[in-house]
Amino acid sequence: MKLSEIETPAVVVDLDIMERNLAHVAKYAQDHALRLRPHTKTHKSPIIARRQLDLGAVGLTVAKVGEAEVMMTAAPDDLLVAYPVIGHRKLERLMALAGNTRITVAVDSVVAAHQLSDAAREHRREVGVLMEVDMGLKRVGVAPKDAVAFTRSVLRLPHLRYEGVAMYPGHIKMMDETGMAAIRKLSGDVESLVDDLTAAGLKPPIVSGGSTPALYHSHHVAALNEIRPGTYVFNDRNTLELGSCAMKDCAATVLCTVVSTAQPGQIILDGGSKTFSSDRLATGADAGFGELIDAPEAIFTKLMEEHGFVDVHRCHRKFEVGEQVRVLMNHVCVVMNLHEQVYGVRNGVVEEVWKVEARGKLQ
Amino acid sequence: MKLSEIETPAVVVDLDIMERNLAHVAKYAQDHALRLRPHTKTHKSPIIARRQLDLGAVGLTVAKVGEAEVMMTAAPDDLLVAYPVIGHRKLERLMALAGNTRITVAVDSVVAAHQLSDAAREHRREVGVLMEVDMGLKRVGVAPKDAVAFTRSVLRLPHLRYEGVAMYPGHIKMMDETGMAAIRKLSGDVESLVDDLTAAGLKPPIVSGGSTPALYHSHHVAALNEIRPGTYVFNDRNTLELGSCAMKDCAATVLCTVVSTAQPGQIILDGGSKTFSSDRLATGADAGFGELIDAPEAIFTKLMEEHGFVDVHRCHRKFEVGEQVRVLMNHVCVVMNLHEQVYGVRNGVVEEVWKVEARGKLQ
Repeated sequence: MKLSEIETPAVVVDLDIMERNLAHVAKYAQDHALRLRPHTKTHKSPIIARRQLDLGAVGLTVAKVGEAEVMMTAAPDDLLVAYPVIGHRKLERLMALAGNTRITVAVDSVVAAHQLSDAAREHRREVGVLMEVDMGLKRVGVAPKDAVAFTRSVLRLPHLRYEGVAMYPGHIKMMDETGMAAIRKLSGDVESLVDDLTAAGLKPPIVSGGSTPALYHSHHVAALNEIRPGTYVFNDRNTLELGSCAMKDCAATVLCTVVSTAQPGQIILDGGSKTFSSDRLATGADAGFGELIDAPEAIFTKLMEEHGFVDVHRCHRKFEVGEQVRVLMNHVCVVMNLHEQVYGVRNGVVEEVWKVEARGKLQ
Repeated sequence: MKLSEIETPAVVVDLDIMERNLAHVAKYAQDHALRLRPHTKTHKSPIIARRQLDLGAVGLTVAKVGEAEVMMTAAPDDLLVAYPVIGHRKLERLMALAGNTRITVAVDSVVAAHQLSDAAREHRREVGVLMEVDMGLKRVGVAPKDAVAFTRSVLRLPHLRYEGVAMYPGHIKMMDETGMAAIRKLSGDVESLVDDLTAAGLKPPIVSGGSTPALYHSHHVAALNEIRPGTYVFNDRNTLELGSCAMKDCAATVLCTVVSTAQPGQIILDGGSKTFSSDRLATGADAGFGELIDAPEAIFTKLMEEHGFVDVHRCHRKFEVGEQVRVLMNHVCVVMNLHEQVYGVRNGVVEEVWKVEARGKLQ
């Protein structure tokens, strides 16, 4: 199948680029003796997860139990749910998986740890716990000053195995000077955290962090020994704008068709917010909803559910109803969540088609 | 099943409110002799579409062929694809449906009309066409001044049945004085359009318009004889803020669980952009990503994929990890697209659960 035969809108992945990205990060982790436990939220596909494991990943990371269930088909030896698992039914489902792989959960409340401990006891399992610590994003995680007391409270509960600490430094952006300063601060803060825990007899075996934007600076955070990047497999306009990759490293685009040229100076694409999500750039720049690969002077100004509005006033060429265009999306993870399948392409030919098995797994 | 037993995040629909909304618009259409061809993009479920048909809707509206395929299980006598259908494969799929129901397509280009005519001829079908005319939204649709010439060009093509004109006045917001002025302007513009076509011997049998925000003003647009509202079945924060419904008319909410309270003055919900979409309010007001029904003083400030950030500084009560909250979403159509199923609730008890069969049908 050729690109032109794909029904649009559709996610197209350049397999050469994807494979290079996978290999590159696997090598980086190996070179710096970092455990790689990639977050599967980006690709949401066991078939890609399996490739990550085959390249040396020690396990997989997911956010939701539903994603964990899907990822079992990749047969990971180790699975981290980097999200508080709250509620009896979810914990029942998680315990059903614990018979088949080594499960760890990141927790930031005694309530969550208690529920996890109860479920593990009931099912006669032992479950790993990572203490989630907030290093500045102000999302989840206990304050570093409370880490020792929190860890003690959690480890008093039976059937939990102390695995260490987890953090998500998603607030660090590397596109300017402030990025390296933030990395240095993070390194100091993580070292203090580990020192505090060690002094209390709670030396963390795993110190887990690392998101894609600051990925290649992980080895500058001395105490870190694990990274959980997700986006690196494809990259997107966010990682590009954040200075963490080049255009040649962007593997995924959305193939669209021009469906209307009725308004002068404007084309309508058959992909809107249901195709691209409404995510703007993470840098905050008002730069539209994507970049047309072959017409960077076009501006993707607006989205409705099924309509992408592109201002083509500045383009030198004309666009015709029926022609295809490729668009680099702002945020690839949420785009994958909107698509049933992905077309893997090499040299302009569709080589494989895979389902986004974990899309929409919210629970 | 009680609300508290639902695994979150989940869409919950109050069946009493939904049924009242369905009946109310059915009666409005009947009272004003307007054909009702509801857009199924909001509920994306044949089970709800069937109820609309049973209440007197003349047919159904969809945007994509994939949605049309799903809606066939509601057994509509009539199906409008209010979107340009471009490309051989999509048209093949559409023609497969044309044997089972009366198909109409809205077109705004001769290219689209040509492709449709060719497909219809090949399959020995006759397909209805509505000429899409732009009445001010500047999305799709030919300019009113070009409507006569465009209609002539389209009707020269074989196997197409002239059904009339379609428009989508989605730019009209009814929350202030400018709304009624816009309705009056629209009424004059539509009358001129119909007069022009009639004078050219092209009197449109159907004059189709109407979105939910201006729904109850449709009878003020004299020449209109069909409406295609979608959102009215559930309503949402947009229709509420646009002044088109009251809180008591909002049938759908997202049930979430508080999963972290680690940051002072903040709670984290288990629903982020994968649950709510990133859609802000259509009015442009910076009022967050939803409203907590039982804590309107809370501010839903930020979304990440799986995390909803809610500022609870102004709340008088405390929130605990594990408790459920209900959130009125900004834009219900895109929320439905993100969920596998919907819980229909009456008197606090889950009465039915239905699948969102047409979610993710992008092609």
